[in-house]
Amino acid sequence: MTFSMDITETDGNARTGVINTVRGEIRTPAFMPVGTAATVKAMKPETVCETGADILLGNTYHLMLRPTAERIAKLGGLHKFMNWSGPILTDSGGFQVMSLAKLRKITDEGVSFQSHIDGSKHMLSPERSMEIQRLLGANIVMAFDECTPYPATKKETEDSMLLSMRWAKRSYDAFHDGSDHGEENALFGIVQGGVFEDLRHRSVSALKEIDFDGLAIGGLAVGEGQDVMFEVLDFTMPEMPKNKPRYLMGVGKPDDIVGAVERGIDMFDCVMPSRSGRTGQAFTRRGTVNMKNARHIDDPRPIDADCACSACQNYSRAYISHLIRSGEILGPMLMTEHNLTYYQDLMAGLRAAISQKTLSNFVEKFHQQRAKGDIDEI
Amino acid sequence: MTFSMDITETDGNARTGVINTVRGEIRTPAFMPVGTAATVKAMKPETVCETGADILLGNTYHLMLRPTAERIAKLGGLHKFMNWSGPILTDSGGFQVMSLAKLRKITDEGVSFQSHIDGSKHMLSPERSMEIQRLLGANIVMAFDECTPYPATKKETEDSMLLSMRWAKRSYDAFHDGSDHGEENALFGIVQGGVFEDLRHRSVSALKEIDFDGLAIGGLAVGEGQDVMFEVLDFTMPEMPKNKPRYLMGVGKPDDIVGAVERGIDMFDCVMPSRSGRTGQAFTRRGTVNMKNARHIDDPRPIDADCACSACQNYSRAYISHLIRSGEILGPMLMTEHNLTYYQDLMAGLRAAISQKTLSNFVEKFHQQRAKGDIDEI
Repeated sequence: MTFSMDITETDGNARTGVINTVRGEIRTPAFMPVGTAATVKAMKPETVCETGADILLGNTYHLMLRPTAERIAKLGGLHKFMNWSGPILTDSGGFQVMSLAKLRKITDEGVSFQSHIDGSKHMLSPERSMEIQRLLGANIVMAFDECTPYPATKKETEDSMLLSMRWAKRSYDAFHDGSDHGEENALFGIVQGGVFEDLRHRSVSALKEIDFDGLAIGGLAVGEGQDVMFEVLDFTMPEMPKNKPRYLMGVGKPDDIVGAVERGIDMFDCVMPSRSGRTGQAFTRRGTVNMKNARHIDDPRPIDADCACSACQNYSRAYISHLIRSGEILGPMLMTEHNLTYYQDLMAGLRAAISQKTLSNFVEKFHQQRAKGDIDEI
Repeated sequence: MTFSMDITETDGNARTGVINTVRGEIRTPAFMPVGTAATVKAMKPETVCETGADILLGNTYHLMLRPTAERIAKLGGLHKFMNWSGPILTDSGGFQVMSLAKLRKITDEGVSFQSHIDGSKHMLSPERSMEIQRLLGANIVMAFDECTPYPATKKETEDSMLLSMRWAKRSYDAFHDGSDHGEENALFGIVQGGVFEDLRHRSVSALKEIDFDGLAIGGLAVGEGQDVMFEVLDFTMPEMPKNKPRYLMGVGKPDDIVGAVERGIDMFDCVMPSRSGRTGQAFTRRGTVNMKNARHIDDPRPIDADCACSACQNYSRAYISHLIRSGEILGPMLMTEHNLTYYQDLMAGLRAAISQKTLSNFVEKFHQQRAKGDIDEI
């Protein structure tokens, strides 16, 4: 087992360090760009690497349907297939099967559903999810869980959490089947329990009894709002193991990430920088900017003067605005590159600040810059 | 005036050399990727450069409508706007206004028309075309002409050619208005006359009386077929000036280019490699390959084993097939990069063969490889 985490410095509840995997190091706190269908949309993997990303996320649900995990395995695994040599984390399929699949039916055994692409019938269970993630060759495998709907009553949330805990144990047993994949790579459990303190605590306790290599917090960023999310972190994080990676799934906006890092989170993933980039929203040090706004069409300045990405170094807002208006593919390419660079720069800034024990100054400056709003109109 | 052409070697009617511009050298025979709306679709300019392209083509019609030539000029010109420091040739708008614009009306003065984007009213004339190309900062400016419809009667073709010749003289006068742009850059005339030998000869004679820096052959690749196109080249090329660039507009397929180079053409442009790339057609040494075909979905081999582009070095047919089927933007990105690399490799091969006076061997091998068909099915 090569997987381990070294925490090199802490600042308050925040920590910085390195996660070691068979595919190389992940500097934490880390942001994982999402490569849904074996590609970070509109990006070559070498460009994703240049933004500063150490690890990508792949989607079990999407890949099992197309091109199928078996096909990817036969072609040498996901790393080779998509030309990414660094670590890959795959989700379990649980979240997408709930939000995308048609006619899903949940039992204790697992979830049967129809593909949103062609209506074909499939099944996901802890055992099948582990099999798919092994076929893909993931370096961090996520336990199969049910993402509890929000809002939900306490009873619904408890039942859902208990189902996820039973599935967590089955995931662990299926992952540790003696295969090389299980020996060399990591399995993370997922804490559920909605917004209820006692349920979150019971969930962490249940997962601690299983020897997971890291724990994720699931079921947040589903509509509860930042205040509630931070509150859940405040009462959950003290219970989490200190020496293992802590991953906040599907989060989030830049200020969500900053607040979660302050509370001790090590890993994040979110489609926001890439998806927003494709629809014309840029993330900058002074907040988000809608590049579709008419005020950009004559603006010779870059999206973000402090950004070193090639979109900001080589192109004006006027040009990027023209690309978006003309429906040119280069628009999403440059916007995604910029947004992912912004996210990675934010993570690098957080890591440096924690290393220097200056996180509170960093966070203050982060909020001050955003409060100024976008650069003055010209 | 920096513009000049050095012919370094000939082989039969074919020639190789260098065209010198204020923006650098163009190795000939040259293929110019088309950057319609100030972008070679799905490509960063640095990647276009890596394929081996020395010069890009920009479209007057598209750019005058969006973002407008005046806006590009205010932002520092087309080179800066689109981040391409090498030479740029712009067409005159004549071809697109005939094929794309709505409600066009042609008089001796010029063409009035409505934008295909928003229906707004515009006018193109020799004088306005020269003004737009100057605002864009083109290094090779094309005379404003009428692209004769095909098929057309001899009378229609003659009238159209004579109109283009009157417009050629007005283009020359408007280009040489004493501005720095006219002093430093080049203006090409366009030979018209359809498929009629005497009309083509009269057109070349008329253009020779004007001191153009190069001549283009227009009105071909409009449906007449390769045999007729080569026939027109066979009777037109001997009349063309020997010491100036000769540009065959809008051509073409790889075997069109090879045959035209054998007949003495120095420059080409065509949307085919980029457009076909976006729709799943790959150009290879063994002919064209439809990447949408089901036989590729498990194929671990590259599109073209002899190609050094990153699409062929890093990805399988299976992966590219997956991207195309999934509608992923990376599909067009990789396909366009491959196709443009194939075209530039072809031009490099033609240049080397002419330099070594082995063009006939090169052409024979070119056709032999294609006759084999795509790599064997697996």
